[in-house]
Amino acid sequence: MITWKNLDTASAYQELLKVAPVDLKEAMAGEGGAERVRKYSVPMAAGLAFNYAAKQVDDKALEAFAKLAEEMQLAEKFEALYNGEVINTGEKRMVLHHLTRGQLGEPVVADGVDKRGFYAEQQRKIAELANKVHSGEIANAAGEKFTTVVQIGIGGSDLGPRAMYLALENWAKVNDTFKMEARFISNVDPDDAAAVLNTIDVAHSIFVLVSKSGTTLETLTNESFVKDALKNAGLDPSRHMIAVTSETSPLAKSDDYLAAFFMDDYIGGRFSSTSGVGGAVLSLAFGPEVFARFLEGAAEEDKLACNRDILKNPAMLDALIGVYERNALGYQNTAVLPYSQALSRFPAHLQQLDMESNGKSVNRFGEPVSYPTGPVIFGEPGTNGQHSFYQLLHQGTDIIPLQFVGFRKNQMERDVVIQDSTSQQKLCANVAAQIVAFACGKADENRNKNFEGGRPSSIIVGDQLTPEALGALLSHFENKVMYQGFVWNINSFDQEGVQLGKVLAKKVLAHDTDGALKAYSDLLDI
Amino acid sequence: MITWKNLDTASAYQELLKVAPVDLKEAMAGEGGAERVRKYSVPMAAGLAFNYAAKQVDDKALEAFAKLAEEMQLAEKFEALYNGEVINTGEKRMVLHHLTRGQLGEPVVADGVDKRGFYAEQQRKIAELANKVHSGEIANAAGEKFTTVVQIGIGGSDLGPRAMYLALENWAKVNDTFKMEARFISNVDPDDAAAVLNTIDVAHSIFVLVSKSGTTLETLTNESFVKDALKNAGLDPSRHMIAVTSETSPLAKSDDYLAAFFMDDYIGGRFSSTSGVGGAVLSLAFGPEVFARFLEGAAEEDKLACNRDILKNPAMLDALIGVYERNALGYQNTAVLPYSQALSRFPAHLQQLDMESNGKSVNRFGEPVSYPTGPVIFGEPGTNGQHSFYQLLHQGTDIIPLQFVGFRKNQMERDVVIQDSTSQQKLCANVAAQIVAFACGKADENRNKNFEGGRPSSIIVGDQLTPEALGALLSHFENKVMYQGFVWNINSFDQEGVQLGKVLAKKVLAHDTDGALKAYSDLLDI
Repeated sequence: MITWKNLDTASAYQELLKVAPVDLKEAMAGEGGAERVRKYSVPMAAGLAFNYAAKQVDDKALEAFAKLAEEMQLAEKFEALYNGEVINTGEKRMVLHHLTRGQLGEPVVADGVDKRGFYAEQQRKIAELANKVHSGEIANAAGEKFTTVVQIGIGGSDLGPRAMYLALENWAKVNDTFKMEARFISNVDPDDAAAVLNTIDVAHSIFVLVSKSGTTLETLTNESFVKDALKNAGLDPSRHMIAVTSETSPLAKSDDYLAAFFMDDYIGGRFSSTSGVGGAVLSLAFGPEVFARFLEGAAEEDKLACNRDILKNPAMLDALIGVYERNALGYQNTAVLPYSQALSRFPAHLQQLDMESNGKSVNRFGEPVSYPTGPVIFGEPGTNGQHSFYQLLHQGTDIIPLQFVGFRKNQMERDVVIQDSTSQQKLCANVAAQIVAFACGKADENRNKNFEGGRPSSIIVGDQLTPEALGALLSHFENKVMYQGFVWNINSFDQEGVQLGKVLAKKVLAHDTDGALKAYSDLLDI
Repeated sequence: MITWKNLDTASAYQELLKVAPVDLKEAMAGEGGAERVRKYSVPMAAGLAFNYAAKQVDDKALEAFAKLAEEMQLAEKFEALYNGEVINTGEKRMVLHHLTRGQLGEPVVADGVDKRGFYAEQQRKIAELANKVHSGEIANAAGEKFTTVVQIGIGGSDLGPRAMYLALENWAKVNDTFKMEARFISNVDPDDAAAVLNTIDVAHSIFVLVSKSGTTLETLTNESFVKDALKNAGLDPSRHMIAVTSETSPLAKSDDYLAAFFMDDYIGGRFSSTSGVGGAVLSLAFGPEVFARFLEGAAEEDKLACNRDILKNPAMLDALIGVYERNALGYQNTAVLPYSQALSRFPAHLQQLDMESNGKSVNRFGEPVSYPTGPVIFGEPGTNGQHSFYQLLHQGTDIIPLQFVGFRKNQMERDVVIQDSTSQQKLCANVAAQIVAFACGKADENRNKNFEGGRPSSIIVGDQLTPEALGALLSHFENKVMYQGFVWNINSFDQEGVQLGKVLAKKVLAHDTDGALKAYSDLLDI
């Protein structure tokens, strides 16, 4: 029997608040520090590991986390979720993105359809289409192969797929699975679509229109933009466009598209990278086998996330450390710092995933909560970030918890030896150095050169950023965010906070405004 | 006579802490709101305006700001800075980036050279080189024109120039001043350089190596990477590379470069976009006239920043509002939200500019300060952000101050009418709507759909993102950051916080490690 209750009603939470943070300067010094690095690590899928040695936690804290996990019934809540309970209570929807990559529990049937079967079928159809595009069986009117795929979508239909594409683009090129270039159009700013259209050959481009509802204004506007371009080039748009949408949307059965692939209301936009939303563009770009490997990595990681033992469940453990940092230690932000240029837009995806899911101040029953929920997430790849905002992370007046990601090998085959080390070795040396610098600091009589230390971080380490590793990484953060939502007793799967802006923007466009809204409309000449 | 003193020793600060924040829901409602939009606006250069109607301030707060500005001698400190006083006390350097775009005060002479003259001379030489490259007078060994410029640099040698390039790329294409494509290599991750090299034609590429000291490890490593690629293509690297560096650097008088252009220790990396660091790549990409217009916009805005009246000095006013939010209201972050796809990387540049400058916890004399200093800066362009992290901004448990940027016209000529409005009108309607939604909120009995409001924002509005407008925008934020550093009595011009990581990374590469550092090195297989 599951009880949904606020965090501050849990007795384990009161205990958590009393847990003293580890003094990292002390704990990470000498051989004790080395011991922590070896001990505080949890294996993940695809050969990754979640290492939290440099977090301000010890066995005592872990005990408190375990109690909280038990009292808040985290594993049970996840079980209910993947077995099809209506967890998105606000919108009265199940939450089924895990089924796009595997079956974690019992079959989930909705509208008479087995949902795992449904998602797998969509994936199969996408693979079929992708193979036909790659073979030239589906081609443009002149019978020529498509060479570019352009995704048209915004939010979850853009950030996740874009980050995943960039993460695997060079890997695919080196591993001879690269099929076609992908581009993305998202912003309603007309310069976004115009700029992308200026740099592609529309005659050889296939467009993937992604909108669950089929009514997202930005996306429909950009579709129109693209259709105009196709028509101006004497082309028939319906031979160049496919749709990813829900079966009930106006796009679903339209002749305007070569094909339509389906998702449904049980897949939130920000959790849709493993559905057709990511599947179509990634299968076209890299081939369906690569996308399948990406799903396998996610599925394997999902299984770990079911574990009731927090020491065998990296997502749950990461979530609890984050809650401790947010609610007991009072930190407001988390920086995501991947030491891999391929993950350049991964932080932007996590920013949506986390902040849109857990940036809430009412619980799942609509009652205000009296504790902080989701933090601000930001980040850039290392080593670039080191030459940018790390100054504040090291010596600023606030402590910002850090989440590093690093790989032993790079993706491409080229490297160079300068001063007796390769670039890849330098990259890895930098992330190792940063973790220790943040944790241990360094005393200096010149206070300007003094490093306080005591700044917590974790690192996810892997061998190489492969499709499986990327899938595991994505799953880890999705499940971490889900677990934090369970702890905070909020609904991580709706986004009512985006509605008011939409309503007011419509009023502005209809010139139905007064007061400040009219004044701003005048200021902007609308 | 200037007195450098801590903020909390100022009597005006004690008064500031007592200023009650305006209730935005009330103040921005009805005609009073419209009146605020018309009243709380300060003209900027290039036709921009800084509108702070939706900030939690009123005439009383403005009075307190003015007193603080006076007591902290903000205008006098800026005057001292541009007249050549050693403001970067930690490194014992003057701070002269303003001289790269104009002469605000008395001539500044260093090492027997008039610095304004020196920077202008570099700009002239860069223009000369750029014109020769464009005309084909400087060409590759086969006598063919260069078609691509690749900047090799990191931190301030990357983020600012890259953001500026992206900001003007499409504008230049539409206005027929686009000369050549620019690309950027920054990360020590070898996949960064390899990926860029895979997509360019090195035989027709000219590389700009940017390193003030000539010793930045990432940059020298990437230079080597590029030189290997040139040699492998049978090309002579010295015919493809120019350097931007200081006169005393090892790169300055080397035969390895077609030409070298100089900056000096008085230009901090994050303030160097208007020096040769931005000048070479932008002049090559868009022509020297466009770069000159960008400088004019910055110079015009700099002049406004000298004003002693905060109501005529947008940078100082913006800085003081930020201090009020940070120190009196306790907000830890600021989001930068440009409604222009061209400004997609402008927030990443501001992240460095602000966080590296003001992420300090000791004052300019090396004594710890007991108040918060620089905030975390993050952001993405609208409307994309609306479909990502705005949920938290609207309904999260923390208040995040917002800095919008918007333009009445887009840069390119294409647009589309859908549902009776253009995309540009939709873009502008959205930013207007968001400001009001954040400020006023909307009560709903369903607490999940309830918007508290009271979330402060400002907007910089302009007609179009032209070179002048971009220069003004850049100058505004540079001067804002400088003024906040003055208020907090910190040195905004050094970055000692980046040193420890460098030292430890060297140890790792030399295998001179023990304890946790060795354990992390093992974990990463270094």
